[in-house]
Amino acid sequence: MKRVRFRDPAGTIRGGRWITEDETAYVTTALGEPDSVAADEHTYPADDVDVLSPAQPTKTVCIGRNYVDHADEQDADVPDRPLLFLKPPNTVASHGSTVSLLAGKERIDHEAELAVVIGETCHDVSESDAEDVIAGYTCFNDLSNRDDQRRETNWVRGKAFDNAAPMGPVLATPEEVPADASIELRVNGEQRQSGSREDMVFSVPELIAEITDYMTLEPGDVIATGTPAGVGPLEDGDTVEIEIEGIGTLRHGVHIPE
Amino acid sequence: MKRVRFRDPAGTIRGGRWITEDETAYVTTALGEPDSVAADEHTYPADDVDVLSPAQPTKTVCIGRNYVDHADEQDADVPDRPLLFLKPPNTVASHGSTVSLLAGKERIDHEAELAVVIGETCHDVSESDAEDVIAGYTCFNDLSNRDDQRRETNWVRGKAFDNAAPMGPVLATPEEVPADASIELRVNGEQRQSGSREDMVFSVPELIAEITDYMTLEPGDVIATGTPAGVGPLEDGDTVEIEIEGIGTLRHGVHIPE
Repeated sequence: MKRVRFRDPAGTIRGGRWITEDETAYVTTALGEPDSVAADEHTYPADDVDVLSPAQPTKTVCIGRNYVDHADEQDADVPDRPLLFLKPPNTVASHGSTVSLLAGKERIDHEAELAVVIGETCHDVSESDAEDVIAGYTCFNDLSNRDDQRRETNWVRGKAFDNAAPMGPVLATPEEVPADASIELRVNGEQRQSGSREDMVFSVPELIAEITDYMTLEPGDVIATGTPAGVGPLEDGDTVEIEIEGIGTLRHGVHIPE
Repeated sequence: MKRVRFRDPAGTIRGGRWITEDETAYVTTALGEPDSVAADEHTYPADDVDVLSPAQPTKTVCIGRNYVDHADEQDADVPDRPLLFLKPPNTVASHGSTVSLLAGKERIDHEAELAVVIGETCHDVSESDAEDVIAGYTCFNDLSNRDDQRRETNWVRGKAFDNAAPMGPVLATPEEVPADASIELRVNGEQRQSGSREDMVFSVPELIAEITDYMTLEPGDVIATGTPAGVGPLEDGDTVEIEIEGIGTLRHGVHIPE
């Protein structure tokens, strides 16, 4: 089942199910209980609603260099344990939006990633228990301001700027996303990134175990699991699509102010 | 005026004013409107309440090496622009608590800091307008796990672990905190750090301007402005006090599991 958060034509934020393969309609269910069918069940044509981020993370923990081919293209080693960095809530952006990015930078790159959405408060989770704390998966663009990232100790200007984390369009349950799910990114219809989840250096259970050794994760928190090769710069007016097998396609525009 | 958030004996979270110099009593006012006096005004002896963090940040932006003497003791240069790093909400801990820290680390250090609490949603704030977005100041302990901090690219294991940001006890309004406010830290009553706000490399308005060039700050967000010299390791059972002129004393215990 694919869950979606959206704002209906009256402005109310609702939770529902994505009911068609081509994203043309959503159906509401009781908010907070997406598996139940509410008495006021109602179907909305997709064009009538604003899709919102499927998660509202208190924090997003991102993983750097988790695909060998991407580490190679960055002239960087694959780390001996997960390379962690953070995106705070100001970075969240939605499917269907046009994200306004930083002005005056030489290079802001796309990075297509599979994102894990956490389902319950958890700490010190073992690899064998990790599946139990996953609510589902979504598509994620780890937008990266290379100008500053290369000049700073911690990647805050480089990774934590407003709108640096478009995610969506839906939350897919774990069984819908194959172990070898394909991850593709297109800019203006042209393919730029193509990879498979099975090429991750550190698996999702390994990442959850490592992160929760240090920090408590909350429902809605996100782990962005790293990007395959093919990252590249975006320009004002571009349209980005990230398609992950079993989830769907995250689509957003790019606005870079003068 | 010094504002305090606390849980009353019935378990209700309230906002109020700290009415005595020695922290022996709090008075409630209408929650969310701390300047007004509510009809149900009530005074609580401090021993009857649990003091909570005066801010509920969606993110805390910390500044590294913002005092020359601390950069020197770390054998590090003072950066040419603010060194930023992040502490997410899982790091927040309250005055009067005993914070449980990471087991098995060689060295977890205290770092006494003046923290700015933001009062309104803001972005792209100029230095000259920066005072307008400040709700007030509080005391902050930037707890730092040196074992991991020295081994990682971004300081996530090193700085973003649970309870790594004790803050409090109150939110003091800006005019209460002198430009040369003293910042002192004691461990088990023994002074370890002593500095003055006037020795910051980058001032609070400079920090707000720089950070909001990249990210929107929300009400309750915190900027931890860096630590003076004298940082050092904590042990299980220690009591830490951070006293800042014009604010008061943040006090917390330390528990390091076996």
